[in-house]
Amino acid sequence: MRKLFLLMFCWPFLTQAQVNQDSIIIKKMSDEIMTNGKAYDLLRQLTKQIGGRLAGSPQQQNAAIWGQRNMAAFAADKVYMQPCKTPNWQRGGKDFASVVGFNGKAMNQPLAALALGNSLGSKGLVEADLLAVADFDELEKRKAEVKGKIVYYHSMFDPTIVQTFGAYGKAGVYRGTGASRAAKYGAVGVMLHSLSTAPDNAPHTGGMKYDEDYPKIPAVALGPNDAKELYAKAKKGMVRVQMQTYGYFLPDADENNVVAEIKGATFPNEIITIGGHLDSWDVNEGAHDDGAGIVQTMEILRMMKAINYIPKRTIRFVLFANEENGGRGGAKYAELAKLNNEKHVFALESDAGGFTPRAIGITCSSAQFKKLQPWSALLKPYGTEITAGGGGADIGPLKTIDENVILAGLVPDSQRYFDLHHAKTDVFENVNKRELLLGAVNMAAIVYLVDQYGVPK
Amino acid sequence: MRKLFLLMFCWPFLTQAQVNQDSIIIKKMSDEIMTNGKAYDLLRQLTKQIGGRLAGSPQQQNAAIWGQRNMAAFAADKVYMQPCKTPNWQRGGKDFASVVGFNGKAMNQPLAALALGNSLGSKGLVEADLLAVADFDELEKRKAEVKGKIVYYHSMFDPTIVQTFGAYGKAGVYRGTGASRAAKYGAVGVMLHSLSTAPDNAPHTGGMKYDEDYPKIPAVALGPNDAKELYAKAKKGMVRVQMQTYGYFLPDADENNVVAEIKGATFPNEIITIGGHLDSWDVNEGAHDDGAGIVQTMEILRMMKAINYIPKRTIRFVLFANEENGGRGGAKYAELAKLNNEKHVFALESDAGGFTPRAIGITCSSAQFKKLQPWSALLKPYGTEITAGGGGADIGPLKTIDENVILAGLVPDSQRYFDLHHAKTDVFENVNKRELLLGAVNMAAIVYLVDQYGVPK
Repeated sequence: MRKLFLLMFCWPFLTQAQVNQDSIIIKKMSDEIMTNGKAYDLLRQLTKQIGGRLAGSPQQQNAAIWGQRNMAAFAADKVYMQPCKTPNWQRGGKDFASVVGFNGKAMNQPLAALALGNSLGSKGLVEADLLAVADFDELEKRKAEVKGKIVYYHSMFDPTIVQTFGAYGKAGVYRGTGASRAAKYGAVGVMLHSLSTAPDNAPHTGGMKYDEDYPKIPAVALGPNDAKELYAKAKKGMVRVQMQTYGYFLPDADENNVVAEIKGATFPNEIITIGGHLDSWDVNEGAHDDGAGIVQTMEILRMMKAINYIPKRTIRFVLFANEENGGRGGAKYAELAKLNNEKHVFALESDAGGFTPRAIGITCSSAQFKKLQPWSALLKPYGTEITAGGGGADIGPLKTIDENVILAGLVPDSQRYFDLHHAKTDVFENVNKRELLLGAVNMAAIVYLVDQYGVPK
Repeated sequence: MRKLFLLMFCWPFLTQAQVNQDSIIIKKMSDEIMTNGKAYDLLRQLTKQIGGRLAGSPQQQNAAIWGQRNMAAFAADKVYMQPCKTPNWQRGGKDFASVVGFNGKAMNQPLAALALGNSLGSKGLVEADLLAVADFDELEKRKAEVKGKIVYYHSMFDPTIVQTFGAYGKAGVYRGTGASRAAKYGAVGVMLHSLSTAPDNAPHTGGMKYDEDYPKIPAVALGPNDAKELYAKAKKGMVRVQMQTYGYFLPDADENNVVAEIKGATFPNEIITIGGHLDSWDVNEGAHDDGAGIVQTMEILRMMKAINYIPKRTIRFVLFANEENGGRGGAKYAELAKLNNEKHVFALESDAGGFTPRAIGITCSSAQFKKLQPWSALLKPYGTEITAGGGGADIGPLKTIDENVILAGLVPDSQRYFDLHHAKTDVFENVNKRELLLGAVNMAAIVYLVDQYGVPK
């Protein structure tokens, strides 16, 4: 009985011989990547020779050309650019924040600060009393006190949430919407605790969005140490602060998604997409976010050609032009997929850092998820398993053009990511070669399996 | 049928209420550690204020006193020293290696080199032609060529082995026994590729042992980049090299295991031991190896007292005096356990680095292992599961006094460990706070479960 039960749920039904064959091919892919992998060297080039690459910057242009040239050198069947307009936000200057008074007494204590991405400049120095709140609940309770003040949100990560993306989700709303929620009640500026897990003082930037109904006030993230000290001080008395930022937008920039393909031998019209995003914030090298995803994507292309793997389905390797402050790269890719009437069966993104892989997270129906479970055994030797829920901002739009496309994301270990995410510390030196390559191995393994067997209904 | 089957194998049979209660207490322990944990600060003290602490060094003495003082401050029921003689190896000087000729042409190319621990000094500069071999097989084939030469072993890690400890085991024999195996055929010195996964040139030291039957020739590990270049050069022609080392032994040193206890309320005579080793190599701060295990051990004591956890069984927190170049700390602990007729039920070691925990590895019978499996569900929220095989060099000797004691080891992710193991890069800056604390959480969880339910027969 038990055996029959298993057979019914195994999809596709794989004979032991097939499983053995799959494990041999996955091992071959892994050995090629772990022994001859170029991802780490590529990442060194992208981070050290090109550097930070905010959409619209010359570095971003260079990165696309670099990606195209390298994927052509890896002998992709074709490589092409997909022109894509992106936002063109400029930081505009050196962001500034300082404590200038406490209980009426003048002082001068600079704060490590970075303007949030997409925020607009303060048009000169803004000075005001500080209203420090724990969260939106406290803001609402004290809304009568907000007018004319600079609001500080103590948006610390909850350290007890083991998977740090959970804590990021909870704290992230302050970065995204905190400025307008304070502006609604008359605040003249916003400061917040960086979305950081690091025991250091580096401020973390990241995207925000204004509500068009309220004044577009300046907004900065503070270094974690300074933020904690400021919050403690505000509990003891009236703190007076200054801030100055310089952000503005230039007209949309002309960027490109870079797309390489290996054509499928059996089902060339069924497309599997692998990708990450080329753009990064301006204050770092974008090594983990998302240089890692970019070079893992390129590595899988290199490896497949190196071992002469001929896929059944068409595999696309996509370096998306813009995710950080606009998500335009993924939107353009989906728009063109629809326009060209393409059939996308599976898309996999790596945009959670180049850390040791823990899982392949898959977004699909629960019936499909059950059918995919047997693949976990093939991933386990490389450190991962199939878990529920996954994808990414770049591949997400594909779902809007075809609800049947299965989305997946590489799930690396998340403990170190928010130490450096969007901070100056996201540099090449903080990426580990084996961890980076092992991520590519697991991505290659799931792509291989989907290529061989398609996706379950 | 299936349910009955499960009941039979579940040990102990836990009601859902008990499982819920256990998960609540484990969560409480985790929250305390992740929020108020002192492990990271303790590690900063141990590495930055005390530093590298080879057995016999003043730093090692200071580390024991520091451990005793802190565990007393954490309000252990008692804290005491276990005097323990340890080896007292001295590096004695700045190790040197250089290429001085190629195909008869003089040159001068210094090599990054570190004498292996326990190796003896060269008594002056040794100069000889190089015999470079891939492995012992090649050494045996070419044994007639060895006399008067310096032998180089190309003991690289196999990069395709995903769990790096597997590759370490294979390459490690060259460090441990390579000198005497070459001396047997008349070699005058030995060099080897550092046991390293890092894409850098830092040499890695580590313990070796001479076979008393052969001359005790000098032995150094070379930086990975220099080693690869040397091996490539040796394939092209005759390389002449120099080396000089200074190692010697002082009389055995007087060190201490530091032991703290929380007395069991129900079964005070049943002892659970948690520990790591205080000593490290001299060339680094011993941050991962094994500062991490030390401060995780201390953290669990701190946490248990902070949440007022009263164990059923007696829990011992042991900072072992000597593992790296002698294993005397663990031997002494077991010797005294036997002498005092102690009943040890379970011992857990952390000595594989302060990286994200992946498993609790347990060495026990397969029947016991099956019975422990249900605990994996309680560990999973913290990133681990129970896997077969585990322990450590410090707790290993307990098995020789009582074969029934169950040994366990924290299994952190292994990708980064051999980048820095025994190299100058094993410093505080390369330890991540959340990863370190999460290791302590998982150690605490398994200790809690053993404390509550004992171990299966």
